[in-house]
Amino acid sequence: MGRLSELFTAETVAVVGATDREGSVGRAILENLQTEFSGTVVPVNPDRDELLGLPCYPDVTSAPSVDLAVVVVPPPVVNGVLREIGEEGIEHVVVITAGFSETGGEGATRERELREVAAEYDLNVVGPNCLGIMSTPVQMNASFGPETPLEGSISFMSQSGAFVTAVLDWAVEQELGFRHVVSLGNKAVLDETDFVREWGDDPDVDVVIGYLEGIDDGRTFVDVTREVTEETPVILVKSGRTSAGAQAASSHTGAIAGSEQAYEAGLEQAGVLRAHSVQELFDWARALSGLPEPETDGVAVVTNAGGPGVLTTDAVGDSALEMASFADRTIDALRDALPEEANVYNPIDVIGDADVSRFDDALDVALADPNVGSAVVVTAPTAVLEYDRLAEAVIERQTEHGKPVVTSFMGGDRSRAAETVLREFAIPNYFDPARAVSGLDALARYRDVRRREVEEPTTFDVDRERAREILEWVTEREGNQLGIEAMELLECYGISIPESEVVDDPDDAVAVAESIEGDVVMKIVSPDIAHKVDIGGVKIGVPDEEVADAYEDLVSRARNYQPDAQLLGVQVQEKVDLEGATETIVGMNRDPQFGPLLLFGLGGIFVEILEDTSVRVAPIGEGEAREMVDEIRAAPLLGGARGREPADVDAVVETIQRLSQLVTDFPAIVELDVNPLAATGDGVQALDLVITLDTEKL
Amino acid sequence: MGRLSELFTAETVAVVGATDREGSVGRAILENLQTEFSGTVVPVNPDRDELLGLPCYPDVTSAPSVDLAVVVVPPPVVNGVLREIGEEGIEHVVVITAGFSETGGEGATRERELREVAAEYDLNVVGPNCLGIMSTPVQMNASFGPETPLEGSISFMSQSGAFVTAVLDWAVEQELGFRHVVSLGNKAVLDETDFVREWGDDPDVDVVIGYLEGIDDGRTFVDVTREVTEETPVILVKSGRTSAGAQAASSHTGAIAGSEQAYEAGLEQAGVLRAHSVQELFDWARALSGLPEPETDGVAVVTNAGGPGVLTTDAVGDSALEMASFADRTIDALRDALPEEANVYNPIDVIGDADVSRFDDALDVALADPNVGSAVVVTAPTAVLEYDRLAEAVIERQTEHGKPVVTSFMGGDRSRAAETVLREFAIPNYFDPARAVSGLDALARYRDVRRREVEEPTTFDVDRERAREILEWVTEREGNQLGIEAMELLECYGISIPESEVVDDPDDAVAVAESIEGDVVMKIVSPDIAHKVDIGGVKIGVPDEEVADAYEDLVSRARNYQPDAQLLGVQVQEKVDLEGATETIVGMNRDPQFGPLLLFGLGGIFVEILEDTSVRVAPIGEGEAREMVDEIRAAPLLGGARGREPADVDAVVETIQRLSQLVTDFPAIVELDVNPLAATGDGVQALDLVITLDTEKL
Repeated sequence: MGRLSELFTAETVAVVGATDREGSVGRAILENLQTEFSGTVVPVNPDRDELLGLPCYPDVTSAPSVDLAVVVVPPPVVNGVLREIGEEGIEHVVVITAGFSETGGEGATRERELREVAAEYDLNVVGPNCLGIMSTPVQMNASFGPETPLEGSISFMSQSGAFVTAVLDWAVEQELGFRHVVSLGNKAVLDETDFVREWGDDPDVDVVIGYLEGIDDGRTFVDVTREVTEETPVILVKSGRTSAGAQAASSHTGAIAGSEQAYEAGLEQAGVLRAHSVQELFDWARALSGLPEPETDGVAVVTNAGGPGVLTTDAVGDSALEMASFADRTIDALRDALPEEANVYNPIDVIGDADVSRFDDALDVALADPNVGSAVVVTAPTAVLEYDRLAEAVIERQTEHGKPVVTSFMGGDRSRAAETVLREFAIPNYFDPARAVSGLDALARYRDVRRREVEEPTTFDVDRERAREILEWVTEREGNQLGIEAMELLECYGISIPESEVVDDPDDAVAVAESIEGDVVMKIVSPDIAHKVDIGGVKIGVPDEEVADAYEDLVSRARNYQPDAQLLGVQVQEKVDLEGATETIVGMNRDPQFGPLLLFGLGGIFVEILEDTSVRVAPIGEGEAREMVDEIRAAPLLGGARGREPADVDAVVETIQRLSQLVTDFPAIVELDVNPLAATGDGVQALDLVITLDTEKL
Repeated sequence: MGRLSELFTAETVAVVGATDREGSVGRAILENLQTEFSGTVVPVNPDRDELLGLPCYPDVTSAPSVDLAVVVVPPPVVNGVLREIGEEGIEHVVVITAGFSETGGEGATRERELREVAAEYDLNVVGPNCLGIMSTPVQMNASFGPETPLEGSISFMSQSGAFVTAVLDWAVEQELGFRHVVSLGNKAVLDETDFVREWGDDPDVDVVIGYLEGIDDGRTFVDVTREVTEETPVILVKSGRTSAGAQAASSHTGAIAGSEQAYEAGLEQAGVLRAHSVQELFDWARALSGLPEPETDGVAVVTNAGGPGVLTTDAVGDSALEMASFADRTIDALRDALPEEANVYNPIDVIGDADVSRFDDALDVALADPNVGSAVVVTAPTAVLEYDRLAEAVIERQTEHGKPVVTSFMGGDRSRAAETVLREFAIPNYFDPARAVSGLDALARYRDVRRREVEEPTTFDVDRERAREILEWVTEREGNQLGIEAMELLECYGISIPESEVVDDPDDAVAVAESIEGDVVMKIVSPDIAHKVDIGGVKIGVPDEEVADAYEDLVSRARNYQPDAQLLGVQVQEKVDLEGATETIVGMNRDPQFGPLLLFGLGGIFVEILEDTSVRVAPIGEGEAREMVDEIRAAPLLGGARGREPADVDAVVETIQRLSQLVTDFPAIVELDVNPLAATGDGVQALDLVITLDTEKL
């Protein structure tokens, strides 16, 4: 593929399938390009010599050389046209035409072929089944959407063309500008990751925003976006969050919905700020597209009214921000500047008779405080307060101190006028102070994303070859699961397991038990019996002399329970002292989009009833493994709450990393459950294991 | 007090302290009243014969008879004026003047005196320290706020005058109308409960909304509002939700913030819809002020665009509503009415080329489905869709089917025009479909409030006299706590306790132990030792022959631990078999605003680490007690999850009710903890008790 930036800086654009038929898409595109585009528009249509006053060409071959081709021909001829385009050496194509994978059957075949043609000629294809693209720096509206946006620093992609139309219509009213806009369509070739990468490289893009219904290659998205978000914020609405929404999204796009848990973890790891509504998407985009970055989380609130001040303080309390605690100097300076009845603690109440200059003084003092990272100016309308002039003062103070200030000038018309002034300087104003605070919160959360250090996963020294041998046992049996008989696999990856052996004879069982100090634990080994405990398939604390009888008993229970179950034998295991240990679970599910999804939690009710778990897309580094342990609600139990012995958290963290390496090394592992992983004050031990494999990937 | 409704229907209003001084509050009020008020305005000022063209009187006594007096005289003379007003037989007064309890010291004294004068003359006083009141039916703006609102069916009270000013300024732009508006000020006489009661009685009030920073008498508020919300929705922002906000509110109003937990529980029990932001307050008010009530939670979404349809579906998934599952007839009818490519399942996608009539058909079919309680119409702008005409179709269908419909006509100018049409029929329109859905959600939640049956608390047959005797033990000792020695108190209220006795002699201990079957539990009894277990002050499973030694050991441990602790003796208790029992906690804290606040949770980590508790203001009925048990996250553990013995939930529920009765009967009980209350498959037993008393209330 050529450089994607050329898609947005084309000097000559061909419209293949252009027409002047009223109400047609081909005409709409031609007209949109004609209206404002600073470059040359070349209509292509074999039936016409001229279209809307432009010379028209029968095909791409005979047309003058172009940088970008917009294709609106009927679906059956799209791929032929693409081939022609490829032969002509044109690299950038937008396929507007619908009738591809979204229609299933024939359309899906057509889309596969499109992909092949694109690969053969190395084409950058947007779509098919999309509204088109726009680039305001060259005033190019290569779409059939009615509105051309204002110029701005936000670049916007959307998996829904209609959403683009709606947003652009609304954005004009909202004075919200864009740099590039892309309707992604079916994402047959170029997808969200390509545009995140492109816009991340574009110094004139301040914020990337998007509406997505699915991400096909989650892992690549995470890797690319993680790098981009070191410099450029990415805000996404990924719809289909709820199960109802996921169902709707899947019927809309025909895509597999994928697991919300994986999206949640993957987007977070990618550094994406995930908006939950359209309002949040644009409120955050506004804040991030022009305001300076707050150094600290401390917020100063300056208001002329107690009630709105309290409302704003609540909004700060709801966010990840905090009310700044003023330095003594600040308090003194506020006391000097404000009347006696004013409140000089945060929220600063300059009281109802405050004019612009009193607000200005208070804001100036507050922003000078090193504990203040940002400020909110909240006002109720009064006879003495001129909103327009206050807007100017806010703009000046923000520039002077280089700290973000947002406003909630409450009121009607008078606020609208001030709003326009504020917007020119990227300061968002809302009637509801909570929305203003939400913008500041987005700024601070993006700062945290930018500052975080994502370390490389540690590579532990493991016995990968032996591990592969163990995994291959599955090929010698029915089904696709391995159980406790494969515990050695964990040992290959440096995870402690109790001494144990699987035997298929009572005498061997006795011999093994005698070789192990103390009583033993005995478990039936069968890939067909998932819940060993429930059928009495586990015996804990068997003395050596009872081992032979216990063996027979376990086998006969298994036979009674499920006569056709494959019995691999009985495991005789060292009895681990669980007194004082905390049972944890580390699991993995392979997500179709994001790959291995690691899960951590405390055992039993904590996972099953309280659903108290943490999730990450593997592979992960130490920091992320530690976060997984720290962020469960029950984490204090591992730390030694309520007189418990503190668990060896470092060992738990290391085990999670080692399992991350295992599931990354072997894509054949589809599911894995180490349950329980017993954590004591001195290390961990894996006590049970279930693995499901995709034997074709072994 | 006279009927409060006269406050809003006054025919003659006096302004005591009226003036024509530019910029003064007295002039602003006079002018506001003069501008539009349909009645007579009487200025009172001893220095003038005439003011702004109106005859002026030196005092209330010499003025013509008035229905309402607005007082703006300086603080020191307010109470004198009130007395005059009282003598004149005027019942309704608004005191605008500030300088009362909000200033502390002298002001607080002045406010106490104001309260006394009001009581003496039976005056209905709004304020002091308020903006005033408004009543649109008589076009009365008895305030110094600049805006007179449009007429509407929402009545609005606010503890912040500035918030009133801000809202009214904004509401004009938003075409949001009000019936009555009250700035509550310091609430010296009339408070939120009075206005909730008054507006609940007013058939022309569709919704009561309010901004509050505190509720002084929470219990009365709950009782009154609970009744009002059977007919009229009440939506409140109670600020100071977060700890930062509570601190700000307390410094603003000088009021005790009170516990957020108590507000949360109390407002919920009162049937209040609690908004968390200004935007929610008004979005919900709009929905509830004109839309019909949805019969069911099923929502139909009709859209011309997949993406916005999915966004709306997510918003439904986030709410307490659900996507309606269409009847077969509906699917068939939609298939007939829509093109083949349309999606006839919910969300209905009428696709991009839909005109008004196709939308109309789909909406008509959807609303006719009995599973559909409400609908959202979501549109992206297209060339063929006329928003104005679609608005009319939506209005007609809503009227015809009597089911609420909200809209998200996405876009700019074209949406604004349609919005105006929709608003006339109370249909809210938002760019963000999530806000439209939030309105529907408020309707459904209010329907649930209206439908719920709040039963009277059960009155159990108890031995209240003996209970009082036990509580009075506290007067015979140092401190204000009772412990396990007072377990009989629980028995008086019908709560099972193990057989036990407190003894102060080893021989008695042996005698008691011998009279109890099996081993016993022995505990040190001392009001000064809170954590008995931690100092080894509890011995479980002591055989009779070891009881004497155990007694000595317990006493010496207590003496070592705290030489000056009062030792009441040792409790010898029947050993309850805790195998298979679930430990629960029932506690109570007396909240300064709401009174006894009951708390339920599972013992140990569930309460202390996971903070998994439920809370209600006592007294409660059976339904509420059952909710307390059901709503904790760990509730399935009581139900017998993971192979546990199901606990006797009925007995737990009854115990909570009995304790509700106990703490209601004895206001002297400030705190109570039954921890643990052991729940088995067959009843419950209280095993330990701590009570803190306010001895002055005994």
